Formats: sequence, C-alpha cells, structure tokens
Amino acid sequence: MRILVANVNTTTSMTDSIAAQARSVAAPGTEIIPITPRFGAESCEGNFESYLAAVAVMDAISNYPEPFDAVIQAGYGEHGREGLQELLDVPVVDITEAAASTAMFLGYKYSVVTTLDRAVPLIEDRLKLAGLDARCASVRASGLAVLELEEDPGRAVESIVRESELAVTQDRAEVIVLGCGGMAGLNDKVRERTGVPVVDGVAAAVTIAESLVRLGLSTSKVRTYAPPRPKKVTGWPITGPGA
Amino acid sequence: MRILVANVNTTTSMTDSIAAQARSVAAPGTEIIPITPRFGAESCEGNFESYLAAVAVMDAISNYPEPFDAVIQAGYGEHGREGLQELLDVPVVDITEAAASTAMFLGYKYSVVTTLDRAVPLIEDRLKLAGLDARCASVRASGLAVLELEEDPGRAVESIVRESELAVTQDRAEVIVLGCGGMAGLNDKVRERTGVPVVDGVAAAVTIAESLVRLGLSTSKVRTYAPPRPKKVTGWPITGPGA
Amino acid sequence: MRILVANVNTTTSMTDSIAAQARSVAAPGTEIIPITPRFGAESCEGNFESYLAAVAVMDAISNYPEPFDAVIQAGYGEHGREGLQELLDVPVVDITEAAASTAMFLGYKYSVVTTLDRAVPLIEDRLKLAGLDARCASVRASGLAVLELEEDPGRAVESIVRESELAVTQDRAEVIVLGCGGMAGLNDKVRERTGVPVVDGVAAAVTIAESLVRLGLSTSKVRTYAPPRPKKVTGWPITGPGA
Amino acid sequence: MRILVANVNTTTSMTDSIAAQARSVAAPGTEIIPITPRFGAESCEGNFESYLAAVAVMDAISNYPEPFDAVIQAGYGEHGREGLQELLDVPVVDITEAAASTAMFLGYKYSVVTTLDRAVPLIEDRLKLAGLDARCASVRASGLAVLELEEDPGRAVESIVRESELAVTQDRAEVIVLGCGGMAGLNDKVRERTGVPVVDGVAAAVTIAESLVRLGLSTSKVRTYAPPRPKKVTGWPITGPGA
Amino acid sequence: MRILVANVNTTTSMTDSIAAQARSVAAPGTEIIPITPRFGAESCEGNFESYLAAVAVMDAISNYPEPFDAVIQAGYGEHGREGLQELLDVPVVDITEAAASTAMFLGYKYSVVTTLDRAVPLIEDRLKLAGLDARCASVRASGLAVLELEEDPGRAVESIVRESELAVTQDRAEVIVLGCGGMAGLNDKVRERTGVPVVDGVAAAVTIAESLVRLGLSTSKVRTYAPPRPKKVTGWPITGPGA
Amino acid sequence: MRILVANVNTTTSMTDSIAAQARSVAAPGTEIIPITPRFGAESCEGNFESYLAAVAVMDAISNYPEPFDAVIQAGYGEHGREGLQELLDVPVVDITEAAASTAMFLGYKYSVVTTLDRAVPLIEDRLKLAGLDARCASVRASGLAVLELEEDPGRAVESIVRESELAVTQDRAEVIVLGCGGMAGLNDKVRERTGVPVVDGVAAAVTIAESLVRLGLSTSKVRTYAPPRPKKVTGWPITGPGA
Repeated sequence: MRILVANVNTTTSMTDSIAAQARSVAAPGTEIIPITPRFGAESCEGNFESYLAAVAVMDAISNYPEPFDAVIQAGYGEHGREGLQELLDVPVVDITEAAASTAMFLGYKYSVVTTLDRAVPLIEDRLKLAGLDARCASVRASGLAVLELEEDPGRAVESIVRESELAVTQDRAEVIVLGCGGMAGLNDKVRERTGVPVVDGVAAAVTIAESLVRLGLSTSKVRTYAPPRPKKVTGWPITGPGA
Repeated sequence: MRILVANVNTTTSMTDSIAAQARSVAAPGTEIIPITPRFGAESCEGNFESYLAAVAVMDAISNYPEPFDAVIQAGYGEHGREGLQELLDVPVVDITEAAASTAMFLGYKYSVVTTLDRAVPLIEDRLKLAGLDARCASVRASGLAVLELEEDPGRAVESIVRESELAVTQDRAEVIVLGCGGMAGLNDKVRERTGVPVVDGVAAAVTIAESLVRLGLSTSKVRTYAPPRPKKVTGWPITGPGA
Repeated sequence: MRILVANVNTTTSMTDSIAAQARSVAAPGTEIIPITPRFGAESCEGNFESYLAAVAVMDAISNYPEPFDAVIQAGYGEHGREGLQELLDVPVVDITEAAASTAMFLGYKYSVVTTLDRAVPLIEDRLKLAGLDARCASVRASGLAVLELEEDPGRAVESIVRESELAVTQDRAEVIVLGCGGMAGLNDKVRERTGVPVVDGVAAAVTIAESLVRLGLSTSKVRTYAPPRPKKVTGWPITGPGA
Repeated sequence: MRILVANVNTTTSMTDSIAAQARSVAAPGTEIIPITPRFGAESCEGNFESYLAAVAVMDAISNYPEPFDAVIQAGYGEHGREGLQELLDVPVVDITEAAASTAMFLGYKYSVVTTLDRAVPLIEDRLKLAGLDARCASVRASGLAVLELEEDPGRAVESIVRESELAVTQDRAEVIVLGCGGMAGLNDKVRERTGVPVVDGVAAAVTIAESLVRLGLSTSKVRTYAPPRPKKVTGWPITGPGA
Repeated sequence: MRILVANVNTTTSMTDSIAAQARSVAAPGTEIIPITPRFGAESCEGNFESYLAAVAVMDAISNYPEPFDAVIQAGYGEHGREGLQELLDVPVVDITEAAASTAMFLGYKYSVVTTLDRAVPLIEDRLKLAGLDARCASVRASGLAVLELEEDPGRAVESIVRESELAVTQDRAEVIVLGCGGMAGLNDKVRERTGVPVVDGVAAAVTIAESLVRLGLSTSKVRTYAPPRPKKVTGWPITGPGA
Repeated sequence: MRILVANVNTTTSMTDSIAAQARSVAAPGTEIIPITPRFGAESCEGNFESYLAAVAVMDAISNYPEPFDAVIQAGYGEHGREGLQELLDVPVVDITEAAASTAMFLGYKYSVVTTLDRAVPLIEDRLKLAGLDARCASVRASGLAVLELEEDPGRAVESIVRESELAVTQDRAEVIVLGCGGMAGLNDKVRERTGVPVVDGVAAAVTIAESLVRLGLSTSKVRTYAPPRPKKVTGWPITGPGA
C-alpha cells in the first residue's frame, strides 16, 4: 500500500519529520511517500497561506506520476481536503480530523494544543465543518510560531506542555491532540505531565488511511465530492509535470 | 493482538456471524475472540434489553480469564460502552461510533439504516452522546425485527436496500452505515443499488481497535472513565467465573 | 396514590433519607414506597455502577408485588429511566430531569451542584439526552464522595455551598439544583448563602409524578418506550420474587 | 391556594373555558381566579396582538386587588411571561412551556398542534427561548383561526386531529401538545385517533403552579427577573384600578 | 428617504442623542425623524419596561401622521421588532440585530458590551432569536445603569472600556458592539484602547435601512409578519392621534 | 469610493453581468471595478474549482495596481474570503454572506436557490462558518449548471422559479436568496411567482461594502485576519504584475 503524505508548507525538513512520524507507525507493507508543495509559504499560519497550500498540495498530488492508495494532508486546520477528494478516487485523510476522530474514542472531551493563537480559529472551523467539534473542550495556542518549534525545541516543548496541562485542569480535556509538527519527545512529555493520552494527527491519519484501504472504502462520488465536471480550466496545474 | 468482540444478545449464531465479519477484515496477527453474554435477550431492540446487555457484556468480559488488547461492543445503539471503559485498561470500541466515525471520512453526510423503528432513538441518542451526529443525515428503519433478518434474508435485504436508497435520494446521504447484523451479501447489494460506500460497524471497529493498540493509545483514566472507586458492590459479577 | 421511590444504590440509610424527603412534600393521600436494589454498589459514582443500578432498579421494581401509580428513580445522572418506561405502564420520573425541568420555571439559567467530579459528565449527558441542557449554566462538583456526605456533613455542606456560590457569581446561575442526596439543612444553607431558589430533585419528582397521575397521563407506548417485544430473555429477573 | 389564570385575549367566553379547564384539574383547596385583559385583541394570532396582550395581562394582574399565590399565562406562543416574573414575587407559569415540559416526561419527542400557521413561529421562538425545543418534533397548524374553533367545532376538531396524526406518523411525535383553546372533547378525540398522550397546557400549568407553591419555590430575583428598578414610568398602569 | 428612529424610553435627551448619531452617518437625502414613546419608562432595563416600550413604540409609530420609508427601533435587547413588522409595509431594523450583523463582516467573533448585568439575558435572547448568536463571544455588562451613563460620563466610559478590553483579551472578541446609548467619545476610546473595530447599532441600522430601501426590499408578508387579521382590538392605539 | 467586484471564474461575460448588477444599485460616487481571475475554471461548481478561484482572486486583487476602498467576492458558496481579509486593510464582503445577512432582516426564514446540487454543501458550509445558518430554511438546487443559465435562460428561469416556490411552500422560507449569476428578469419572476422578497447577493454586497466604508469600519486585525507574518512565500503571486 502506498500512501502519499503531503506537507502543506515548503519546508522540506518538516516534510521529513512528518514522513518519519508516519513511517514509525505504518504497518508492514505500507510505503510512505512524502510530498512537498512546489510553491507556497515556508509555514502555514493563516488563511492566505492555507488557501495557497490547498492549491499547492492539489498541484503536487496531481503531478505525482505513480499510482497510490491514499493521501494524507498533513497540516492542522488547513483548507483543501475537499478539493483533493474531488480530484482523487482514493481516500483522503486530513490530520486535524484524524486526530479528533481518534481522540473521541479515548475520552469524554479532548483539546487541541497548537502553536500560534491565530491558527485557533482555523482549527475550530475545520472541526466544526467536519462535525467533530461537539466533544472538543478547547483549542489552545502556545503562542509560538511553527518555525520557532524547530529553533528552540526546549522552550517550545515547555510552552506546549503548559497549555496541555491547562486544557486538562481547566477545560476538563481527557485527551490532548497535538496540533503542531513533530518535535522529538513532545508526545511523551505531554503524556507524562498531564497523565492523559496524547494523539498525534499524522500517526492517527496513517492508521485511518490504512484501514480505509483495507476495508475497500473510498470517498463517495455521488454528490459533494464528485469529480470536477469537464470544463475549461486555465493555468492548471499551476506547475508542470517536470517542475 | 487479541480483540474481544462482544455480541450484545444471547443468540450464538449472531455471535458467530459477527466474529466471521470481524475476522474477514482483521490484520494478520489479530486474534478475534467472540463473546456471548451469559444472560439477557436473544436480540436487543429496546432500552430494557440494551441495559440488560450492557451489564451482561460487562459481566462476560469481567469473567474472561485470558489477557486481551481491546474490546469491541458489537451492537447498534446499545448502552454500556462507558462502563466497559471504566472497568478496563484496554481500548473499548462501540460499533455504532466506529461506523459513524469511519463514514465521516467518506462523504459529506451519512445515514444509518437499521431494523426496527423503535431502535432509531437509541441510535440517535448514542450518536448524539458520542458527538458524531452533526453529519448524520438520518437514521432509517426497515421495519424488520433483528431475528427476521435471519429468517427471511431475501425480504430483509430488499427492505434495507430500499431504505438505503431513500437515505441517498431524499436525505442526501453520501454514505450508508448498516446498523444491523451481517447478512450475506447485504453490503454489496446496498453499494450496487445506491452507488455509495457502505460501512459495516464491526469491520470499522476492528480496524479502529487495531489502530489504537498499534498507536499505544487507550482510554483516558483521569476523570470520566477512571476505574470504579473501591467500594462494596453486591452481587457482582452477576455470574460466577465457571458459569 | 402509591409512588415507588427507587434508590439507585444499596445503602438503606440513603433509601430512608430519600423516602423522608419524598414524604415531606407528598400530597395528602400519596403513599411513598421506598425501594432499595437487591444488588449493586453502595453508592453510584460512575458508569459501571450506574449501569448495574439501572438493571438492579428494573429488577427490584419488576419484583415488587403490589400495584403502584408511578415510579421515581432517585439518582443523579443515572442510566436506566428509559428501560423502566418500557417495562411499566405508569409514569416514570428521573430526579435529574425533574429537578432541571422545575428549575427552568424559576430562573434564566440553573446550575447543578453534585459530589464527585467524575459524576459531572453523567449528569451532563443525562441533561443533553433529556433536552434540558440549553439553560444549564454549569454542572459543578464539590469533590466529595457520596458516602462522605454522610460521614462529615459539616464539611460536605460547606463545600457544596461554596460551589453553589461560584455557580451563581461566575456561571450566572439563577437557580441551584442540588445533585446529591439529602443532608439535613443543606437546601436552606445554600438558599441563604446564594439568595437563589434551590431545587431538590426528589421533591420535584414527587410533585411531577403526582401531577402526571392526576392528569391521567403516562408514558407514550407507540414507539421508543413500547413494551419489550415478546422474546426469550435469559436470567431475568436477576433476582427471584422471594429474594 | 389562589391561582390567577390570565387569558391573553379579551373574549370572555374563552376566559371561561380556560377557567373551567383549570378548575377541572385543580387540587382540592386551589381556587382558580380567571383574568381577562381590559384591552387588546379578541384573539391573539400574531406579534402585534401578542405584545399588546403581554402588556394588557401585566396591567390586569397589577390591578388585581387581592393576594394570590401563582399566575398562569394562558396563551400559546405569547410574549410577556418574563415581564410578569419581574413584577411579581409568586411563580409565573406560561402554558406553552408547561405543556412542553410535561410532554417531555411522556415520550421521546412531542409535537405542538395549533390553529393558524402564522402562530407557528411564535410557538417555535417561545420554545427556543425556554430551552424546551430540543425534543420538539414539529409545530403544526390546522389552518383554522382561534375564533373559528368556537364557531365550527366539528370541523376544527377534525382538522386538528388530522395534523396530530401527521405529527405522529411523519414527524415521529410520541406526545401531542394541543396549542389552542379548549374545545369539548378535543383531547379525547386526538388521543383516540393517534394513540398517544395528549397534553393540555392549562391543565399542565395548574399542576406545575400548585407544585411550585407547595415546594415553596418562586422566581429567582438575583438577576434576570429582579423587580424593575425604581424609576419614572409614564402611563402605567395603562388602566386605572377601578376600570 | 425618511427614516423614523424610535427611542424605546421616554427620555427625550436620549432621543436627541440617538437622532444625532443617526444623522451623523445618514446619506445625503436621508431625513432622520426621531420618535419618543408617549408612555413607558424613562430607561429600559428589563422585561417589564421593554414590553411596555414595545407597545409604546408601536403606538407612537401608528400615530405618526406622515409617510416614511423605514423604521429603526433604537434599543438594545428590546422586545417589539416583530410587532412593527406586522403593522408596517416598510422595513423595520432593530439596532441589536443591525450591530451584530455588521460586526460579523469585520471579525471572527464579536462581543456586546452593555450597561446593566440584568440586560445581558435580554440581549442574548434577542441575538438567539435573530440567529445572530453563533459568533457572539460574549455579552458583557459594565454594571452601570442607563441613566448613569449620562450623569457621570467619565466613569461610564472607563467601565465600558474595561469590559471591552476583557472581551478582546479573555473572550477573544475581534469586534466590539456597544450596546448602550451614545456617549461622546465612547466609540473612539474603545477603539483606541482595544485596537478592534467598534460598531454602533444606530449607525449600523441607518445604513442597513437605507440599503433595504434602495434595494426595494421590505418585510416578507406571506406568513410570520403578515398584517394583523381584521378583528376587534380594544383600546388600540393606546394614545389618541392628538396626544 | 472604489469597490473591486471579483468574479470567481474566468468567464468574462459573467464578470460583465456581475458588474452591471453591481452598478445598478451602487450609490452615486461609487465606482465598480470588475475583476476576472487570470487562471482557474470557466465556472465554479465544486471544491477544486473553488479553492483554485480563492487563490486566483487573491492573485488578481494583489496585482491590482490602483487603490480601492472595498472588495466583493462574487461567488456563491466559495472559499477564499478569509484570505482576502488577511491580505487587505479594506473591508471584504462575500456575496453568500451578504445575501443571507440581508435576508434575515426581511423574514423569519430564508432559502437559497442555486444551480447544481453539488454546490449545496458548499453554500451550507459557508453559511455555517459565517454563523448565518440558523434561520436558513433550505438550500435548494435547480439542477442546472452555471453555464446552462446563460445558454437556455428560459428553462433556467423556470427551474429556479419552481424550486423557489417549493422553498416557500414546503420549507416555509419567507425570503429567497438567488444563489446564482444574474439572469435578466430572474429576480422579478421569482418575486411575482412566490410573493416573497428576493435578495440578490451582488446587490446586497454592494450596499454592505458601501456602508462599511461610510462607517469607517474594516476588518479587525488583532487575531484571525491579521496580515500574514513575514516569511518566505515561493511562487507568489502566481501571475506577474504585467500578466
């Protein structure tokens, strides 16, 4: 089984760590193929960047030359999943939704802890549209930018752990979803300090994508996610096959 | 990995077909262990029977002598999952929730098609408590009792297919969840006639249980599903270990 | 008029104080008949115990040999009311619902103050299923266990009064529902300290049960609460008539 | 115990039949005192008439010279209950809310059947504000005006019975609330034809008002329903004490 | 274009400042005609006063002798807009709704900051009925009465600014709606101190009323807001044409 | 005042008719500047095309060389408004939201009538995120594609009128929002046949944009719609300034 895991920003080191995270939980026989968009922002922290990423991920996937069995869109609170579902016959799994869906099997309420405060409404909107918000206790932000996570991991870890603790003690979350890229040891630290299960979206998405493929299930094509109707589309794909 | 799959009624032929369904999708290395309650109704079609089943399943699981890695409660719209979560350290997956959660990755709205009309409110309530109802287009009933499904499969299949078609054309469901026991060929028939993906709860639950175990995740114990406090409990378990 | 008032735990002193509370508000001519389950936990503080209580109460009521006009299930946030409604032709009143329903005639928002924090989600779920949660400002817990209420009433009263005050000042509750067993003087103390009406669930349930009987109204039997269909039920009732 | 039962329109024959209905269920010792507004419309079927009625009822109650223990506002979907709660220390019960609250103890879903279609949004809004709409299956209109009910009772009964049947079969209501004035035999007819319990708002309100008085409970005065602040109010009451 | 702007209380100095506010944003060619009710309270801070105002505004508008193109009801969280819509063919705009509707074009969430705490539920209810509450972060009260705003403007401004700051920092509002009468400089002060856009309801309502007139749109008359049916209405209008 | 009105597809004849519609309601002194995306689909009828349009509109607006006072995004149920709000300091008005917001001042419930059924979920999602869905009675589709509207206007008009009638009679809409491009005479026809007000999104958006500019209000920049953080964005804008 071949699963494309698409980073939403152009920072290849983040693509690498997403791929590593995916591979660490993939079943034997699952091949993880990392995808980096050919254009867009080096990190996605708002709507402009996220809309650009939505198109850039569709562009990159459309240009991917080999067959594949599922796609994971690996960004928190990002636009674009519905477009991929229209373009593809294979299952598409968004990591925000995968994480929330998984968390709901583990506790009464879950919280998402992310980086910048301005990303909170994007995650809230994604959960609302996905119908996965009813048991979301809160979406909290550590106040750190995505790239700061890579620059000063120690401080980043500490600020995320602190918000996770507040999610458990004040918002009554029983599960934490980490809504930000993989930092070494972050999951373990949050679990230790809060005593609650910690769900990583990429890991959750890999198992869900594998499961859908194994069950022979894919996106319904009767209405919302039917293939685009044949018509003239100018300038698509944005980048050529050899780009 | 050993997964207990608990039927909620006392009809062993239904336990067998649930186990067969579970085994047909289980990953290599997953052992499916069917559980039949030691008391209760021969089919669960209402609250009295379902509450009795909740306790009977907890009783049967509590008496199970071997170690196991996860539990699946295999009834649609049944009470009891929360109790199992308190009693056990391993993940517990309810098939109503597993099916809904899976369906939400496949289409904009899903419908559940079940047997008796009186089961509809139970399923609606379970989805509401689980926070998985926002994208449920409808819960429809074929009007047939659980055991009639076994007695006259042809007619049963036809009535369920008809309700599935109405769910797609009238309620705008894009995915069908079959909220009733496994009849040979039912999934295929509904898929052919409606053109939409069909989710089977037992199958969905097996992959979710496997995924949770693989990800090292289990029920949060900090609050709602903490183990019962030590206290005097009279008459528990209901049946003895050798029953 | 004869009303069965069923305690949900096996502690007969609590059955007694519930019965006393019921009798103190019952109309002339109303006979209060206390029921204690024959098995189950000495206090109900979680789902396992509550599911067991649901079945134990159905068992005890089913074994009750005399005619009666209504049943009150006297536990906060407990499972089981729907099962009793299926088994009986007379009205069934749950005290959590009775209290909330009464509080809504008295103020814009109400709060429930209960004992253990782990009971909060059970009460929230019960109110949500009953459709009585829209004007619930909060469900707060004093942090004391049910049986501690009896052991150190002074401290128990103080901690519950304190949470009630917070419900009024912080959550803007205008009515307090006391979601825990009767302690002498508790109602009065909370009323004095908060200045808001205090609703006791047992008292509210008695007047509602009496009213339904007087109006000639009982549970609708056309669908959700129809009697169980005739079928083989093994091991029911759990205890024999002479137990 | 003395309960004021306020009609919302100026038609005294309707005040009489409301009073008769109230008396037929009142407990021994309860005195029902009918109130007719001194101005306003001969029937209330819209917002203009209902706002006028709100003030006219407050005017009439304010001018009532004797002490009383509770007030019932006897109109479906009418404005004004909150104003009475501010003006009075005794409990105020709105019949729309009383009926809905009672119906919720009897079945999974209830429907309201009223007269004119234009009254439907008023009833829906009242239930929404009261937080009693979650289990309302539908509000249906017979298409007849309030006064036609009195003129051609036979046709009125038939059209209301027909809508009640549709509420049960199509909207899955398990209880019917009759949202219109008392016609002889209407309750019985609807019950016979639909097989479900029928709740009359006036009757329900009488038992609730009696219960609140018996329990020593009245409107919370800490915030929303505090007495009007002392200030200059011109032209109030609208009518003088001797009017 | 002639727009009637109706104050809801009898204090003419407030009518004047509302009219001034309206005129300051009115388009060239728009004539603002202030209306003061002929009876009612000198300030509206609760349901009794607001219901009285609803009727007094309908009374004053009904007695207005000249033609006009739109009506603005200039009170926060007041009853009555629906009645005016029935009585009139021209558009009716409530300032609470106008402000909320405008705020939603400016930010993800908005908060309303008003005067007395007891007015908060009235505003919340109005927003809920109008279906404009989903993006309301909070309704906060400064604790000052309406008339105190005029008496000690400095203190009033400060207390409202402080609540506005809390709305932004704690409730995550991105827009502030000032739910109270016009004080000189209040808008500017709140904008400066919070850094977010500040919406004034009267100003918003003027532009909306003008827009509806310009687009040739007015209240739908097919159902909810159809003219009152012809019938006997006693004592209406409350005041005579020459009053 | 200069308002950019951005078509979301690349069909310039549609840009022209949108601009004509905008100009027909613009105030004296308002200059309407039509914008056509430089790439994307000739009509937007799904998520892929809509995401592409979101970026293409941002691209076109970013390349626009002159100053302007507001932007209107003229597509129904389209992605992208939030991105424009981040990029710009001037108000951004989405026509779906403008139409819904306007309709809510005119009737109790409104319906949107659009072209293809597959566009319905996009419109529903946009209304839900905007918090403008509570009073939406239905979103209905005529079954015609966007470009068919131009090809066979007679048939298109008829099918849209028919769905509008069903929205009024079956879904109880009191206002119709036409969720599709301007066809000559469509508004008038729907108004005549249904008897309810008909709101055109482009027209509504023009008056709202004008109002916001006149009131000196624009997008809040404190959180969700803050400008994109300074960072490396590859390949942006997609097209060069001289394209």
